[in-house]
Amino acid sequence: MRKIISILLSLALPASLWASEADLKMPENFGSDPHTQILYWGFLVVVLGMLFGCYQFMKVRKLGAHKSMLEIGNVIFKTCSTYLKQQGKFLAVLFLFIGLAVLLYFKVLDNMPLGNVLVILGWTVVGVLGSYAVAWYGVRMNTYANARMAFASLRRKPLALLNIPLTAGMSIGVVLICVELVLMLAILLFVPGDLAGSCFIGFAIGESLGASALRIAGGIFTKIADIGSDLMKVVFKIGEDDPRNPGVIADCTGDNAGDSIGPTADGFETYGVTGVALVSFILLAIKDPAVQVQMLVWIFVMRILGVLTSVIAYYVNNAISKAKYNHADDMDFEKPLTCLVWITSILSIVATFVASYFCIKGMGGYYWLGLSCVISCGTLGAALIPEVTKLYTSPTASHVKEVVNTSRQGGASLNILSGLVSGNFGSFWTGFMFFLLMLVAYLFALQFDLKELFGDYGSYSAIFAFGLVAFGMLGMGPVTIAVDSYGPVTDNAQSVYELSLIEDDKTKAEAEIEQEFGFKPDWEKAKHYLEANDGAGNTFKATAKPVLIGTAVAGATTMIFSLILMIQQTLQASYNIDSAKEVLNLLNPYAILGFILGGCVVYWFTGSSMQAVTTGANRAVAFIKDNIKLDANAPKKADISKSQEVVKICTEYAQKGMINIFISIFCFALGFACLSSPESIIGGPNATCLFISYLVSIAVFGLFQAVFMADAGGAWDNAKKIVEVDLEAKGTPLHDATVVGDTVGDPYKDTSSVALNPIIKFTTLFGVLAMEIAISDSFRDVAPYFGIAFVLIGLYFVYRSFYKMMSKDHNKD
Amino acid sequence: MRKIISILLSLALPASLWASEADLKMPENFGSDPHTQILYWGFLVVVLGMLFGCYQFMKVRKLGAHKSMLEIGNVIFKTCSTYLKQQGKFLAVLFLFIGLAVLLYFKVLDNMPLGNVLVILGWTVVGVLGSYAVAWYGVRMNTYANARMAFASLRRKPLALLNIPLTAGMSIGVVLICVELVLMLAILLFVPGDLAGSCFIGFAIGESLGASALRIAGGIFTKIADIGSDLMKVVFKIGEDDPRNPGVIADCTGDNAGDSIGPTADGFETYGVTGVALVSFILLAIKDPAVQVQMLVWIFVMRILGVLTSVIAYYVNNAISKAKYNHADDMDFEKPLTCLVWITSILSIVATFVASYFCIKGMGGYYWLGLSCVISCGTLGAALIPEVTKLYTSPTASHVKEVVNTSRQGGASLNILSGLVSGNFGSFWTGFMFFLLMLVAYLFALQFDLKELFGDYGSYSAIFAFGLVAFGMLGMGPVTIAVDSYGPVTDNAQSVYELSLIEDDKTKAEAEIEQEFGFKPDWEKAKHYLEANDGAGNTFKATAKPVLIGTAVAGATTMIFSLILMIQQTLQASYNIDSAKEVLNLLNPYAILGFILGGCVVYWFTGSSMQAVTTGANRAVAFIKDNIKLDANAPKKADISKSQEVVKICTEYAQKGMINIFISIFCFALGFACLSSPESIIGGPNATCLFISYLVSIAVFGLFQAVFMADAGGAWDNAKKIVEVDLEAKGTPLHDATVVGDTVGDPYKDTSSVALNPIIKFTTLFGVLAMEIAISDSFRDVAPYFGIAFVLIGLYFVYRSFYKMMSKDHNKD
Repeated sequence: MRKIISILLSLALPASLWASEADLKMPENFGSDPHTQILYWGFLVVVLGMLFGCYQFMKVRKLGAHKSMLEIGNVIFKTCSTYLKQQGKFLAVLFLFIGLAVLLYFKVLDNMPLGNVLVILGWTVVGVLGSYAVAWYGVRMNTYANARMAFASLRRKPLALLNIPLTAGMSIGVVLICVELVLMLAILLFVPGDLAGSCFIGFAIGESLGASALRIAGGIFTKIADIGSDLMKVVFKIGEDDPRNPGVIADCTGDNAGDSIGPTADGFETYGVTGVALVSFILLAIKDPAVQVQMLVWIFVMRILGVLTSVIAYYVNNAISKAKYNHADDMDFEKPLTCLVWITSILSIVATFVASYFCIKGMGGYYWLGLSCVISCGTLGAALIPEVTKLYTSPTASHVKEVVNTSRQGGASLNILSGLVSGNFGSFWTGFMFFLLMLVAYLFALQFDLKELFGDYGSYSAIFAFGLVAFGMLGMGPVTIAVDSYGPVTDNAQSVYELSLIEDDKTKAEAEIEQEFGFKPDWEKAKHYLEANDGAGNTFKATAKPVLIGTAVAGATTMIFSLILMIQQTLQASYNIDSAKEVLNLLNPYAILGFILGGCVVYWFTGSSMQAVTTGANRAVAFIKDNIKLDANAPKKADISKSQEVVKICTEYAQKGMINIFISIFCFALGFACLSSPESIIGGPNATCLFISYLVSIAVFGLFQAVFMADAGGAWDNAKKIVEVDLEAKGTPLHDATVVGDTVGDPYKDTSSVALNPIIKFTTLFGVLAMEIAISDSFRDVAPYFGIAFVLIGLYFVYRSFYKMMSKDHNKD
Repeated sequence: MRKIISILLSLALPASLWASEADLKMPENFGSDPHTQILYWGFLVVVLGMLFGCYQFMKVRKLGAHKSMLEIGNVIFKTCSTYLKQQGKFLAVLFLFIGLAVLLYFKVLDNMPLGNVLVILGWTVVGVLGSYAVAWYGVRMNTYANARMAFASLRRKPLALLNIPLTAGMSIGVVLICVELVLMLAILLFVPGDLAGSCFIGFAIGESLGASALRIAGGIFTKIADIGSDLMKVVFKIGEDDPRNPGVIADCTGDNAGDSIGPTADGFETYGVTGVALVSFILLAIKDPAVQVQMLVWIFVMRILGVLTSVIAYYVNNAISKAKYNHADDMDFEKPLTCLVWITSILSIVATFVASYFCIKGMGGYYWLGLSCVISCGTLGAALIPEVTKLYTSPTASHVKEVVNTSRQGGASLNILSGLVSGNFGSFWTGFMFFLLMLVAYLFALQFDLKELFGDYGSYSAIFAFGLVAFGMLGMGPVTIAVDSYGPVTDNAQSVYELSLIEDDKTKAEAEIEQEFGFKPDWEKAKHYLEANDGAGNTFKATAKPVLIGTAVAGATTMIFSLILMIQQTLQASYNIDSAKEVLNLLNPYAILGFILGGCVVYWFTGSSMQAVTTGANRAVAFIKDNIKLDANAPKKADISKSQEVVKICTEYAQKGMINIFISIFCFALGFACLSSPESIIGGPNATCLFISYLVSIAVFGLFQAVFMADAGGAWDNAKKIVEVDLEAKGTPLHDATVVGDTVGDPYKDTSSVALNPIIKFTTLFGVLAMEIAISDSFRDVAPYFGIAFVLIGLYFVYRSFYKMMSKDHNKD
């Protein structure tokens, strides 16, 4: 009951967000402005992009595979479907409340015509469904690709092994971005101007709801399964993906839940929310409609361009790879991926300058140059940050080698320490890179006088520059998502290979394959290729994380703008205080207090998400230990019912963990906002600074915590890979030590780190609304009391997130 | 050569600090003001306190012990002496440069009379020597107490085992605080008013130099030795403190280097610097000399009171313990320590109100009440924060039990994860507690109109309140230090017991003991008592850490005040900008950029200090593995020469690690300050915000990182203790898993966590000076170029701190 009330509360409120966003009006006659015409052509590009994606999808599906492998691929897809359907129901329940709230607010309180309300409501539904749909698309693509890749490993053509996951990834990346763009262009061009702003925000909230739920739950699910199945390797000395281990199927499902479903939904949301943040910024901060139109068009042209450059870069890179590796017997799988990222980045930067010149040179001055420079900082960042990340996570990195070396003498202990060191150094250099990129972007903004574009709000031009950096980082979105999607395919492919048991009767398999596919399988290097490819997948999964978190941070800064603007208006009107100068001040004690609170929440979130994994894994391990059948007589075949039991455990703990986290995050956002009411019992108008600095703090703490965990996790993962692939030392104490590191790194990188991104965005997006409620004329006096109540509820769920999630002591010895 | 230049640079500069602090003038005729007379009585109290400390010292030394134990105690003291002497030489070299710089600045540039220069120089020397001397005192006391405690375990009187380390701790705590107070009172009362301010700052810099060096190097040393000797337990399945393990003596030395020498020097410095920060604040921010005098007197009365209440509480607590446990056969060693902390806290709070009433009621209004309330927030915090910490680190805590439980199923992997979770949750609740304490203190300051005391600077009263909270937390300093010193004694006592080999020939030992000491040793529970006591020691070592780090953070806020004031004056004078409103603003992009830089440095510091431990431990483990003699014929006796070799390895890596860290921290402080020059190439007067937010960020990030690591480390440590003492499961896989956690936790809690405290203070204290140089009329134009150079040097040493510290691959398999 308590849960239901809390969820109800959490969802009844977002509707009032539209209250302030109602002045987010489009410039009049936007659709028919001559500058806008190019966007209709953009539509064409985006539709072509979708066709490209579908073509790649069919290409992968058409590839054949041995039936034993196809079967396993199907089993994985089926368990994924079960998981996704469950999540879908959960989302539907959440959405019912939001829908009701929207109806209530617009129809009852605001007395809007029913038709308009339905339009807004419709776009919110589209947002949730969008996140959910791309997740389905991604998982379907990946579960086709995994079996085909496993089979292709037998052809002794490493290039084919590169192409399958990359094609699948590009298909997902391009389709995802194009769906997003079609929807956003539709709002921009076809929704009436006075509704478009509300529809954008509704759409963003919908996306955010979907992505947060799928990211957090997926992250917990995947790592319970992963740890559960990994630990059996050490305990029973069995191989990776031994079919007798009931954790293996759950692990394959988890790889998709965590590394495909979560990231695709997250990517979709990040791309959307960053765009919405910039659109709102342009509508709020630019007063001249002519400039507004040009800026909006420019933003979308940049986006559409990203699709084009990504696809072109993909073909160029394919040609290069073919020339280099067509006859190679062995190859470094990371190189072509790196190459793809750099080609896209360089193409995008060139295209940015050219297109900006033609698109906005009419604005006069050198704005086209300035804006291109700023956005290029982001595009460059999207290529540079992965390079920095590789220094800490790639199998060739000194840090990863150090993890292996210290494990030789110091076993698991020094393995863990070295991995943590890698994460710490990675945080430093990545943080420093962000500092440099943002600084340079700001200096460009100063140099090219971008503040002139904003009139009265000129001092906010730095924030606009930060937002553009985030936007630029996502410019090459299709490729960023493609290399991120590479990992789950390669990871699954290994499992499919083992689970298919194809090596158990090689003669039979050889005959079948020669008959059906017309080639003689080469068993010698198949597994080696798959493992090496998985290493590359690990690295690129790791490199995508800092890019996404970086956009969340820079994007959050832009969103905080609306909040600051709102506070400023209220304080000016009701208290005659210039809040930007008097209140949002480092000497204000609430600034320090807010920073402390932000740190609290980020550290707690890290702990509570890991606790859900720990306790779930503890339960899963106990179950698997009891149910694994290793005696010689037992059939060496997966027991599907036992596997489903493991999947059930994972789902249960994922949902439990998510509920605690979601309610606490929600209550803190609302509670701290209410405590920041200018009539606060704790200090008057000064207190409004508390919430702003809370949001800033969450973003900055989140950045470091996320990068730290991603890099440490990546280092442990590839250290294990080195021991397995390069040293061929499976089963040795050295390998055991690296398995410990890898299992610690699993929730680090794939649960806590990645979920910080939606957490930051949800808190900021929802925070805009929460603060608006807190500061409203009629509510401001009582807000602090509600604030205390919400903070107490939040604290209670923080308490629950450990004390009600403790592992049961299954097997006292 | 590069090293020498860098060190030279790092030391040539502090002298100019006095430039701005020269207006830190004492009120005239301070020494003869009637209000001041009470401080002369204070002298008496402090001298009596020193006598109390010496009496306790003699009491412990007088206790007898079996000669085999005394011998081991002496060996430990001797290796400690060697270590301390080496550190002393290092400090002397550092000091030579500082001395030269002081002479240069005051004599050559400022043309001050030689006598005055010598006075200031003298106090700087006193600061360094103070840190160094209390470290010696502490280690001498502890190495007497360890052997006596080991021996006392044979009497089957657990109360005696409580009393020995507690008496030793009180002796250290009271002497340390009294030495500090004597010195500060001497400056206050006997140094001429126009020199006193400079002397205070000189004294603080001296202390800070000594403490930083001893803390960082000690932290690295101890954990190399600890991990080196611990891992042998798992590799060779030998017991704790097996004398054949050459790492054991080094470990005992390390326990003292890290847990005694480091903390005593750090405590001395923290107590001093917090005091100096408040004294400067009073001198700068209060304009009315009469109020100044009363506030200064009040501050010192509060301090002296803390000594009295600590000693009284100690006796009261002793009486209670005696009544409760005199005849007990078993006891919970944590309870009396908790009891002592609470008695002291309550006594101190009562005394605060009473004494404040009599001392400053003459100031009119209810200031006495307001100030008492604010300071009591700190005193209460000093008792509450340990309670919060215990929820994450005590052997009875759910979090610690969870670490044990998950290790049953999940081995080292889940052990590590659970420990990290404990740290994360601990950070949340500790952070939230700081938030509450600071908030309440600020509300008291508002309520009692403390801003009236500050005239024009009324808006800074919140910062004064934060400073008083830090001051209050240290009020019961002697007890805080006493319970912190408990750990190294109990830890060493266990080792002494084993190394003495007294159990090898029990008959002989029994005869000797009966003859010499007149009682029959009871072998049954001796080891159990020692282990259980060590658990209590672990917990209280963990509880002291958040208190110290908290004072660093709150104290840093106060110090940043001088900086802000200075920037404000310059910007007002030269640019006609009200920096508090226009520049130190959350909308200033440099605020965000500064936060990012602070995060970078804290994460990097964590990594680099752990890397020094990891690489050193890797080397030590390799050495020990090659040199341990376990064959049946080998004598079961410590090989002193091999042990010294291990000590040498530890020292070598400790110094290497420290050099990189010290130079980077120094260069960043100076570099970022120079980039913040108002003539900065990167943005004019706005850029001054960069350094302020860098300092704030280091303090807040440092707080969370330090608490996180302290709590996680404490949880792992006591989880191992539970397995050893309660479950008696040494040698099982469960025990192996907890050993892994413990070894990871070692550098976490005892290297990186604790050193963040001096890092924050050094950066802030040195930052005041760095900024002053950067902003000075003649240097401001070129400062940014120097800034870039310093940042590049800093980055180079960050690079070195990993790439030149990588472990060598000793034993490729």
